[in-house]
Formats: sequence, C-alpha cells, structure tokens
Amino acid sequence: MARLLTQLIPGTLMVMMLAGSSSADEGMWLFDHPPREQLKKNYNFDVTDAWMTHLMHSAVRFNSGGSGSFVSADGLVMTNHHVGAGALQKLSSAKRDLITTGFYARTREEELKCIDMELNVLVDISDVTAKVNAAVKPGMPAAEAQLARRAVMNTIEQESLKATGLRSDVVTLYQGGQYHLYRYKKYTDVRLVFAPEKEIAFFGGDPDNFEFPRYDLDITFFRAYENGAPAKIEHYLHWSAAGAADGDLVFVAGNPGHTDRLNTMAHLEFLRDRVLPDQLTRLRRREVLLRTYSEQSLENARRAQAELFGIENGRKANIGRLAGLQAPAIMAAKQKEESSRRALMGNITPDPWEAVATAIKINEKIYTDLGLLEYGGAFNSHLFSIARTLVRLGEESAKPNAERLREYRESNLDSLELQLFSAAPIYKDLETVKLSDSLGMLIEQKGADDPLVQKILAGQSPTERAAKLILDTTLADVALRKKLADGGKAAILASNDPMIQLARLVDEPARELRKIQEQQVDEPMHQAYARIAQAQFKALGTSAYPDATFTLRLAYGAVRGYEQQGQKIPPFTTIGGAFEHAAAHNNVPPFRLPSRWMESKSKLDLSVPMNFVSTADIIGGNSGSPVVNRAGELVGIIFDGNIQSLVLDFVYTSDMARAVSVHSSAIIEALRKVYDAGALADELQGHPGK
Amino acid sequence: MARLLTQLIPGTLMVMMLAGSSSADEGMWLFDHPPREQLKKNYNFDVTDAWMTHLMHSAVRFNSGGSGSFVSADGLVMTNHHVGAGALQKLSSAKRDLITTGFYARTREEELKCIDMELNVLVDISDVTAKVNAAVKPGMPAAEAQLARRAVMNTIEQESLKATGLRSDVVTLYQGGQYHLYRYKKYTDVRLVFAPEKEIAFFGGDPDNFEFPRYDLDITFFRAYENGAPAKIEHYLHWSAAGAADGDLVFVAGNPGHTDRLNTMAHLEFLRDRVLPDQLTRLRRREVLLRTYSEQSLENARRAQAELFGIENGRKANIGRLAGLQAPAIMAAKQKEESSRRALMGNITPDPWEAVATAIKINEKIYTDLGLLEYGGAFNSHLFSIARTLVRLGEESAKPNAERLREYRESNLDSLELQLFSAAPIYKDLETVKLSDSLGMLIEQKGADDPLVQKILAGQSPTERAAKLILDTTLADVALRKKLADGGKAAILASNDPMIQLARLVDEPARELRKIQEQQVDEPMHQAYARIAQAQFKALGTSAYPDATFTLRLAYGAVRGYEQQGQKIPPFTTIGGAFEHAAAHNNVPPFRLPSRWMESKSKLDLSVPMNFVSTADIIGGNSGSPVVNRAGELVGIIFDGNIQSLVLDFVYTSDMARAVSVHSSAIIEALRKVYDAGALADELQGHPGK
Repeated sequence: MARLLTQLIPGTLMVMMLAGSSSADEGMWLFDHPPREQLKKNYNFDVTDAWMTHLMHSAVRFNSGGSGSFVSADGLVMTNHHVGAGALQKLSSAKRDLITTGFYARTREEELKCIDMELNVLVDISDVTAKVNAAVKPGMPAAEAQLARRAVMNTIEQESLKATGLRSDVVTLYQGGQYHLYRYKKYTDVRLVFAPEKEIAFFGGDPDNFEFPRYDLDITFFRAYENGAPAKIEHYLHWSAAGAADGDLVFVAGNPGHTDRLNTMAHLEFLRDRVLPDQLTRLRRREVLLRTYSEQSLENARRAQAELFGIENGRKANIGRLAGLQAPAIMAAKQKEESSRRALMGNITPDPWEAVATAIKINEKIYTDLGLLEYGGAFNSHLFSIARTLVRLGEESAKPNAERLREYRESNLDSLELQLFSAAPIYKDLETVKLSDSLGMLIEQKGADDPLVQKILAGQSPTERAAKLILDTTLADVALRKKLADGGKAAILASNDPMIQLARLVDEPARELRKIQEQQVDEPMHQAYARIAQAQFKALGTSAYPDATFTLRLAYGAVRGYEQQGQKIPPFTTIGGAFEHAAAHNNVPPFRLPSRWMESKSKLDLSVPMNFVSTADIIGGNSGSPVVNRAGELVGIIFDGNIQSLVLDFVYTSDMARAVSVHSSAIIEALRKVYDAGALADELQGHPGK
Repeated sequence: MARLLTQLIPGTLMVMMLAGSSSADEGMWLFDHPPREQLKKNYNFDVTDAWMTHLMHSAVRFNSGGSGSFVSADGLVMTNHHVGAGALQKLSSAKRDLITTGFYARTREEELKCIDMELNVLVDISDVTAKVNAAVKPGMPAAEAQLARRAVMNTIEQESLKATGLRSDVVTLYQGGQYHLYRYKKYTDVRLVFAPEKEIAFFGGDPDNFEFPRYDLDITFFRAYENGAPAKIEHYLHWSAAGAADGDLVFVAGNPGHTDRLNTMAHLEFLRDRVLPDQLTRLRRREVLLRTYSEQSLENARRAQAELFGIENGRKANIGRLAGLQAPAIMAAKQKEESSRRALMGNITPDPWEAVATAIKINEKIYTDLGLLEYGGAFNSHLFSIARTLVRLGEESAKPNAERLREYRESNLDSLELQLFSAAPIYKDLETVKLSDSLGMLIEQKGADDPLVQKILAGQSPTERAAKLILDTTLADVALRKKLADGGKAAILASNDPMIQLARLVDEPARELRKIQEQQVDEPMHQAYARIAQAQFKALGTSAYPDATFTLRLAYGAVRGYEQQGQKIPPFTTIGGAFEHAAAHNNVPPFRLPSRWMESKSKLDLSVPMNFVSTADIIGGNSGSPVVNRAGELVGIIFDGNIQSLVLDFVYTSDMARAVSVHSSAIIEALRKVYDAGALADELQGHPGK
C-alpha cells in the first residue's frame, strides 16, 4: 500500500465479508448502509443523509485502480502521485520526464490532456438482487447458472446505460448475497494540473514504502473537463483550515480493491500455499527483469519506471500478506473464527465449506495454465494484450450482448475502447525484453515438449520469437487497431499480423480454461459463500459490510499513534522531519529531497505536519482517498498503510495497523512555498472552513 | 562469468566430457595431457614439458572459487577483483569499505592479512584409477559401491597427506573413467596488496556483465606469505612487454568449475526443466531480498555487496545457460550428437542412457527437499551453516576416516576448520533478514502442515523464529565455536544453543536425503557415464578432455574479434574507450568512473588496450586465470565471457563465444598513472620480456 493501488486479483478469489461483530473502527461500509450505530456509540457522531450524499458525490474513482476526490468547483481532482503516475508516464518522452521533474500548469491552457484516463463518480446505487436471483433458477447446474447470471447482469447494465447514459455496473456483494447496480458519471477529458517530483512524492522509495514514520508529498492534481471546459462541480470537498489533529475522528471515502476476510480456511490456505507464492515468484522475476533493463540507460529507466514501481509495490504488499498467513497466531485466530461461525450456524446441507474446498481443488489443477494463457502470464507484452482484445472483440461483438464475456458487454465497450485505442507510447525494446522473458517462463512452466508451447514458439527460441513478433506486428499503430476493430471478426480472420495470429492461436485453449474457472470454480464458490452469508444473516442480522470490491466505501477511525517494539510512534511527522530523514541517509536516493525543496528550506515552516496515521480500515485501491473530518472538510489524503496494516486483507486490527495520509496543511505549505503554486492553493482554499 | 566464479553445483550434476572430435581451439585440457597435436597442427606450436611445468606451478587456485597466478618471485598473486571481493569484504567495516575505495599497500607492513583465505598450487598429478577400481568390485549394489569408493578415496587422500604434507584430493575425471590424485601446496597466510575501486573493476556493472566491448580493470593483487615472510616463488609468470596482439595464440591456465558437455539429452532436459528454473527462482528471490535490504542505508549496501554481486552474476549466467537449452537449434545439435554417439558405440547392455534417465527420475522426486534441507536452501544463514558444520563435525570425526562424509575426511579438516573458525564479520540484522525469508520459502515449498516444518518453526512465524534464533545463538563468537568443536559429539549433544539444536533437528532427514542422492542418483549415474566413456574410449581412443571439475586445465585460442548482427566487434578496447563509455551513459553509476580516473585522464595514454577477447575455451571458475603467450609471458587476465559464451557449458563454439580479459598493458598503465603504484608495477615488470 503505501501505494494502495488496487491489485486486481483473478475472479476466483472474490469472496464476501460479513463481520459478525465489528471491532471499533472496523469496516469498509457501503454508502447506502453507513455504520450509523457504531459512529453514534463510539464517537457520538450522527450521520446525516446529506453528509453522506455530499461525500459520495465528491469522491472520484480512478478506473486504472485508485481513488480521489473533487476539491474545487472547477473540476479539480486530487489523488496520489502514484495513482497519477501512469498518466504522467504516458505524457512523458525521452525529452520530458514528468515523473522525475514534476509539473505545474500555471494557466488552464498549460494543463495537459491525459491519455486514456477515465474517472468515475458514483451517482446512485440500487438493489437489483431480486432481478438477478429471478434469472438464476434453483437447482440449475453450475454451468447454466453462471451463464444465466452473466446474461442478466449484462442485460441490466445495458438497459441502465440506455436509459440514463451513465456507466452502469452490477456489483456482486456479499459474494452473491446481494447484487447492486452502481451508476457512475464518467469523465474522460482529464487534464494534468500539478505533480511534484517523484523524489518527494515517493521520498524514501521502496525501503520506506509501507513504513511509518513517513514524509511523502504523494499528491497529484488533475482537472475534469466537459465539453472542452472545466467541469462545473456541485459536490466537492472544502479544505479544512487546520487539517487533522491527534485524536480526531476522520472518515475515508474510497475504493478498496479486494479483501479476503470471510475466506474459509481452505481458501486462505490456497492463498498461502499457491496464489501468493506464485504471484511473488512472478513479481520478483519481473522486478529483476525491469531493474536490469532500467540499469542499462537513463532512458530505459524512464521507460520502465511506472511499471517497475507497481511491481515493487505489489511485491512488498504480497510479502506482507503472505507473512500474515504464515503467522500461526493469525491462522489460529481465523480458525477459531471459522469454528465459531460453523457452531453458530449449525449444519447447512450441502456443507458450503466443503463446496469451497472442492472448488479450490479444481482451481489448483488449472491454476498454472490459466495464469499463463488466460491471464496473459506467458505473454507479458502490451502489444499482445491489444491483439488479444482485438481478437475477442471481433468474436464477442458478433454475439448477443447477454452471451458475451463480461468485459465485452455492450455497456462496457466505451471504457474498453478507451484503453484499446490509447495513443500511449509503446516501447518496442521493452516489449521485446518482457515478451522474451515470459515466453521463457511458458516453456519452464508448461514444458518445452507441450504441443501448444511448440506452436507458440514456432520452432524459435523465446528471444528470437519475441523479437520477431514485436518487430513485425503493426499494432503499435492506433489507426490500424481501429481498422481491425471496425472490420470485426472477418478482419481478424483475414489479418496476417503475427501478434493477431498468436492471440488467435491461444484463444481457444485460454477460453476453455476460463470456462472451467467460471463454471467449476467461481460459480460453486459464489453459491457456497452465498449460503454461508444467508445463514449468517439469519443468525446475526444484516448489520455488516461486504468484502471490498473496488467500489465506493466509507471507513472511519481516529488519528492515533501506536506502540512498536516498546517504542511510541507519534501520529504525525513534520516537514522538518523530512529534511532530517534525508540527512540521516546522506541525501542519497531514494532518500534525496528534490533540489527545489533543499532551496526552499528556509522559507518553509518546518513544524507543519507532513504525514499522519489513523485507524481507518483501508486496503489497496484506497490510494488517493480523501480523508475528511466531522464537518466533511478535507484534512488529508490516504496514500499508504503501514507494514502492520497488510494483514487487513484477512482481519481488521487497530493495535498497530494504520492508514497513512498526507496532511492537508503540508499540501498548502508546499504548493505556496516550494512550488510557487499560490493560484492552485487559492483554488483549494476557496472556501476555508466554510 | 564476467565473473567467471565457479558455481558449485550439487554433486548429482557432475558428468564427464569426452569430445569425440574437438573443434579448433576447443578444450579444457588436463595438464598431464595437453593437446600437443592440435597445437602443432593449428598453430605450429610445440608444447614442451618444461613449458607446461612452469605454467602449472605458476597457476594458483583460489579455494573460494576462482583462479590466479604468481607474478613475482616474492609471492605476488594476481587475480580478479571479483575473485578477491570476498576477502575485501571480510577486511571491511562500517568505517572502511575496501570494495568501494580500493586499497594499495605502499610497504610490506601495510599489506593486510586476509581472513580464512586458502590458495592452492598444483604440485603433481598421479593416476590412482587402478587403486580406486580395485576397491569397488564388479556387481556390487550401488549403495555398497558408493561406500566403498568413498572409503578408498578418503584413505588415499589421508595417506598422501601424511606422506607429503600436501593437500591431497582424488579427482573423479571422465565421471569415473579415471581417478587422479592432485597434490597442492597450500598458502593460508595471504595478504592484500592492491585493489582498484569497484567502479573501475566492475565498470558497467550488471548491465555490462557478460558483454563485450568492455572496459574493466578487474584485478586484485595478494601476496602469499610463509613463516611470516613473503613466499619465495620459483615459478611465476613474467610480464610481457607488449601484451596480447590481434591474432596471437594465447593460453589460459585456470580452474573451470563445471561443464555439462556430454550430458545425455535426458540430463540436459532435467537441467532445462528443473535445475536452472529452480536456481533462477531462488537467485531472483535473494537478489530482490538483498537489493531491498541494501537500499535501506549505505551501511546495509556495504554489508551485502559481495554477496549481492555473486547472486546477480549467477542470475545472469544462468539466464544465459537456460536460454541455450531453450533454443531449438542447440537442443537439435545435442540430439544429433547423442544419436551419432549411440550409433557409433552400438548396443551397450544395460543401456547407460536409460540408466541416467532412471536416476534423474529419482533425483526429481527428492529435488526440492534436498535443496531445502541438505543444501541449506531453507536456512540461508551463515550462523546456521556454522551450526550444521559443528554438528556434523562432532558426529563424523567420531567415525573412522574411511566412513566419513567426504567433506569431513581427515585430509580435508584443515581447510574446513579455516572456514569454520573464520573471524569474518557476521551481521546479525542481515542474517535475520535472510533466514526469515528462507524459512518462509520452506513453508511455501514443503507446506505449513508438514511435521518437520512445524518443528523447525516451533509455533512461530518465520520472522519471529529467525529473529529469535539469530538473537540467541552464541555461534558468532569464534572462541565458543572452537570450544564446541573441541568438545566433540558430547559437547554438541549438551549444547543448548538454539541454532545448534535446529541443525540437529534437521540433520537426520537431511542426511537421509543425501544418502538417496548419493546412492540412488549419483552412483548409478557415475557408473552409467563411465560405461559411455569406456565405450567411447574404445571407439575413438583417449585423445579427449574431461568435463570441468574445478581443477587446473589448459585452454588455448586466438585473440580474435567477431561479428554480431552484422556488426564487426574488434578484439580490443582502449582506455580511452572507457571514458567514452562513461560519457555515453552520463557518468551515472554503474557507468561512473572513479574520481581518481577522471582526475588522471590527461596523464593516461588513451590508446593503451584495456580489454580483449579470445577464442579460448573457458567457463565459471576461470575468473582470474592468467593469459600467456607462446613464451609463457603474461599478456592478460581472464575476467569474463561474453553472453554468447554462456552456452559453453553445453557445447563449444568459436563463432561468437569469446573469453574476455584485461590486457596486461592496461594494468601497468593504471598502476603507474592512476594509482601511483610504481613499485608494484616495477615488481611485475622485474623481468620484462625475459
């Protein structure tokens, strides 16, 4: 997390959460079911509908995997630097490295239009559970049930889009206990306003990632446009005059990506024994690959930096998650929880815990091949992804909407095409290095004598094959991609682009694996978890929150320090602390402050709070979430969790787990005194303490 | 290689080499069987016995895994910086980082005594094949045969040591076709004389490793002492006045560690499918671990640097090896070679190729556990290695010499104790990080519910267990180690040191796995390969060289450039090229030249050759090997092979594969003009052109 980007995890692992009895400050609450009682009881805070609505409409989801918020009437959006890094990377070139130098548009004209960015603002939520359940008849075989559910969801979304013009997603909550339709207003004309240098945004680098105390200015500002002009925003967050203070009740509105809190033990063991070790092996492999590529030249380093950051972040997060599952104390607690739950619910026939375990056994069997072929592990190349999408788009768009793979449903095509036709730069040398390595991995994992592997390699070594594919494909040309997409299935079949032909070659076996996954693993697991959920609803009522699903949630907690190995960690750091931290590390990267900061030191009020921690319940995907006070004013922005927070994937604890935020005052101080960005600070403070 | 340190590979993979018809310049020849005919025919060079003897006695083996040579009458030894790096690391501290700063002793008094260094100089070779074969009776079951062979080898060595006082090793050549007794003079009082900065020794870092053109001054000088005074050396290499020139015939005398050229296809496939992927996964894991540790502070980076270099070097080498085995062209050539060999030999009963395949199937079954428990993969800690050695030393030394595990044989105890009682610094924080990670890997690979794993973890998480073990063990204290060793088995049994107890806990299962490996895998494979060798001797005669075994070999070839992707790569680079290479990379590490070089630029003759390539047949372990001309004069020092040379593990080729050396003239130029080390240069040039 410091770097709470969501890590999207294969569908199979999506499970629901039903915290029987939430600890204080626990929970990633639905916006239509806020924890009113807990807030009243623990903090004497009355949640009003108006307060919730304002916060919901002010919150922004970055479709690429993060959170943010509107912070001015003129469409200004604040998020983390590491959420915006992908956009900065796409706007950069050998001659302009915005991640390194930072950026500030002093006028609207200087704002840079982002490539393929999509922001989502949640407009309303409606319960469509009855409609979905009506389509899936009791007693249906799992395969049929899966098709029926997919069909009704695709249809509901398409009808909603037609009726409202809004992005419409059916979200599976409580893993099938409920289905909600989320409608979003979309912004795709988004422009870059301000970003600091990476050296201060990610000060301390990988060593300090997921650590506290911290001293990062992990922020970036964008502006949403409509019809060529800054969007006029009714609901945006007003800037707090003082920011967060020790002991304050604070709220976080963001999009936590995924949690596993109600996983059965068998499911947690699968994560521990297979999923996380496998993901870590692949992450480390890619980390080493991109590091060695990056070391070859400064330009290589620039090309790979955003991707490398994501990999390193994922590696550190997953090491923390795996360490949690390898800790006997945590597994014993989870076992106790499962035993109590089973005891409470009595016998359920057929036993859903058994059903989950059975589904996992099937999952285990196809796990490697599915990762290689369907999730693209063997084809670590952006150009391959484009080819795969074109091939499937041709095939799926020829089918009725209800029968399509979820990502090709009619209502999703705009978002899909925004990515597919992106003009983001593609570096063929980097593509070759990545594809070559992953083809090598394919041989290692499936065997050199496998007939499909031999067809994929076409008698060449991985290096030769990758070099030739990347050299010969024409898919780097956006116009050609569009032409192929417009030509539909016939154009794909007629194409002699070698990457298209490779994507076609692996499509059938990949689809076959996906079908097994969806029908023999995911569907039985959904049904089993739904039965556990229903039993728990009966036993305990519905006052609970579902596991995270990269949809908008409310978390809350107190600004509070903690004790670590007998040492008190205060909740705040200061701007002065950043300078001390750099000096303690000889100002050597990643502990070097940008020269702009060194030169501005005498102007800065070193006592201004820089970062702070709170007990709010967050996880990857919450990156960039606004932190607000009782008055709904912005007091900070989430950018990380400490190392102890990584187990929040499985279990909430407020002993030492903390969410880490940039303090609102540090943002103003830096904008005014380091970046000479008074106009931006004025825009933020337009309604001080309103 | 660039960084041709030997990678010692589990015993199972030791196989023999019998090149039926050597290509020109092919071969790692035994010193008692030099390739007289080839040298006469191809280069019109007559090998004399005196020439061979002089070179043999001038060559030095670094027992830690590299090569070197005597270069003065006063015991001066030249090797690579990366061979000496372990010694530099052990002599360094938070206040003195010899790897970074380099070192020069202007007087004998300033020379620094190395910790636990052992140099070996080959004194004579004798054939003991008949004696070994007499002990192993035909028809003996494999288990018995293995014990009998081990017994006779242990005994021969001990008798030789007693008789001569020389280090005595029975070396298995042609994988059992022959057994030779190698006797070495040992030097253990070795002192550091000169090392350049790592920035020039490893200029270009990992990106340039195994690449050419290169510009590295990869050298270090030690001095061997006897009785407190510089050793008086009869045979040492005289310095060539001009050094190597284009087209020259050159010779390399060094200790190639391991090759796999006569592996059966089944054996090569095992390397491709299991051994190399597994080693790479572990190397990448450790690379990421040490990189993240190193980034935390400059002192951390210093502590981990020598080990991290070894890991990165091994990773790059193994990627090259694996790429070779994944290239259809190479595997097809090897398959053709095997088919021809089988056709040539006719039917052999029982079929030795089958026997190798059968042994490999058993190997596969125990491969993971053996790596974790016996080879220490689960216990990545120096303190654990010490505990393991103490536990086994107690047990083995109570047995008759003939019955001991090979490394505890009487004749090896001095060398073993030099390491065991080493005063080299041990960093507890680094130990904890490494052990914690490897205990986590143990859980991943053997499963959290495995009874032995549970005993090893003792109810704690890997992090907790590792921290407690490293905190509580007393084995960092050399005096305590000696006391435990002196107390023998009884002292070990009575010890309550937790690391000793852990080593005892895993000893029995580890020994059990090793027994299976030695008796059911290695022994049948030795016998099978020996039968192939015998058949080939019959069919083709004995004019061949065995696979590498980290013993002294002679290679030869021409100084010659090559063509790569249509581009001519000249055989030489120059000192001036180093400055250009740095500038082309903005002088950013690892392409930054030391300030001493930048300041000396005007004094240097930029046209002096820096590095050069030749067609000599080398592999890991050859690092530091002297390169000599027809006159036996030193013209360079091997430090690397190019990327194309990595397949030399499996097959020799001189198309593009090249050995990379530092040119002798660059050494003198740098010593005199950059390092103000005229006295050292004078000592080297004491007999110019003699």
